[in-house]
Amino acid sequence: MTERVTIATWDWVPAGPRGHVRDIRLRWALEEAGVGYDVLSVPFAERGPEHLARQPFAQVPFLAHGDVRLFESGACLLYLADLSGALMPRDAQGRADTLQWLFAALNSVEMVTVPWWYINLRQTTDNPLAKWMGQRFDRLEAVLAGRAWLAMRFTVADIAMVDVLRVPDRLGALDGHPALRDYVARGCARPGFRKALDDQMAHFAAADAARAAATG
Amino acid sequence: MTERVTIATWDWVPAGPRGHVRDIRLRWALEEAGVGYDVLSVPFAERGPEHLARQPFAQVPFLAHGDVRLFESGACLLYLADLSGALMPRDAQGRADTLQWLFAALNSVEMVTVPWWYINLRQTTDNPLAKWMGQRFDRLEAVLAGRAWLAMRFTVADIAMVDVLRVPDRLGALDGHPALRDYVARGCARPGFRKALDDQMAHFAAADAARAAATG
Repeated sequence: MTERVTIATWDWVPAGPRGHVRDIRLRWALEEAGVGYDVLSVPFAERGPEHLARQPFAQVPFLAHGDVRLFESGACLLYLADLSGALMPRDAQGRADTLQWLFAALNSVEMVTVPWWYINLRQTTDNPLAKWMGQRFDRLEAVLAGRAWLAMRFTVADIAMVDVLRVPDRLGALDGHPALRDYVARGCARPGFRKALDDQMAHFAAADAARAAATG
Repeated sequence: MTERVTIATWDWVPAGPRGHVRDIRLRWALEEAGVGYDVLSVPFAERGPEHLARQPFAQVPFLAHGDVRLFESGACLLYLADLSGALMPRDAQGRADTLQWLFAALNSVEMVTVPWWYINLRQTTDNPLAKWMGQRFDRLEAVLAGRAWLAMRFTVADIAMVDVLRVPDRLGALDGHPALRDYVARGCARPGFRKALDDQMAHFAAADAARAAATG
């Protein structure tokens, strides 16, 4: 019924970001929505004019569907939600709830967690964003102590928020927030996430194998 | 034709954030769209359970329209764009362009500018986010050197991006990026922005006057 979607990700990345490259959000949404898709690789090492024409910040992912082209994982999630209907309630308040939590994930929580992580790579003590991040987590903990999913049923907002919280969780920064840890575990236990993660890891493993064969 | 919208902002704030409280984004969109609205004040000093029920991170703005309630300035912008049509193209690619740039403003640019500003308040040299922010500005400069508005015509994406860039501009951080400075100036010259800014300043000035009368 629906035309296939194409998503673009890197042809290869080092071990560290594997499992966290943001195409995981699109893969996850596509699996949950049951929409068929193809994965296109773009060079990680050289990001030329062709790449910048599709993604002006030289990032991935970006998406194509029919004649439509777009970038930004949040915009792609919203586009996919509107395409399939599986990840977005159809009533006005359900849609509003989903939109507000999608933006909360990307503009209130990830706005702190990614710069915190970026600084954390260089200085693990006295991170100037640690207190602010803890305040965000405290507020979100209070919300998720009372519900399984942000908009009451699973939506693209949860795909964004769970993925945003995966890095702090991995680094131990959610240890004082049991509802957040449970929420991340609940999201990551979904078959759609498992499939998306396995596929991303296999994608980069295949790139390693191709390199080894080329130089072997 | 359209029911009036209610937006909530603080009853009072100190001088520093005046003109930058995020209700400015909603006021601006509502002025551009020609949608009638009322402004509700919520206490800045005490953020109790009633506030948290409307905005779980204890922030402003939030919005009500008919029976629908939502928070997050990005979600409110998108809701208003879908409500009026004035700030969102109706063709599929125009909508995709608007979505991608709205998320780019909030998740690729503001994700760096706000933490940079937060650190800048405490340490003005060796800000660990300065280089990253400059890279984002370089990429955006290349885009805005070739067009007046992000999605080719003025949309909610420009309301978000211009407002995101206003603080770095005020702090001199756009000095090496003439296209970005022109873009901010172009956005801020629009009658909708001027009205929104004047109204926000008057809102807080009225709060000062009320306080002076109460203690005078």
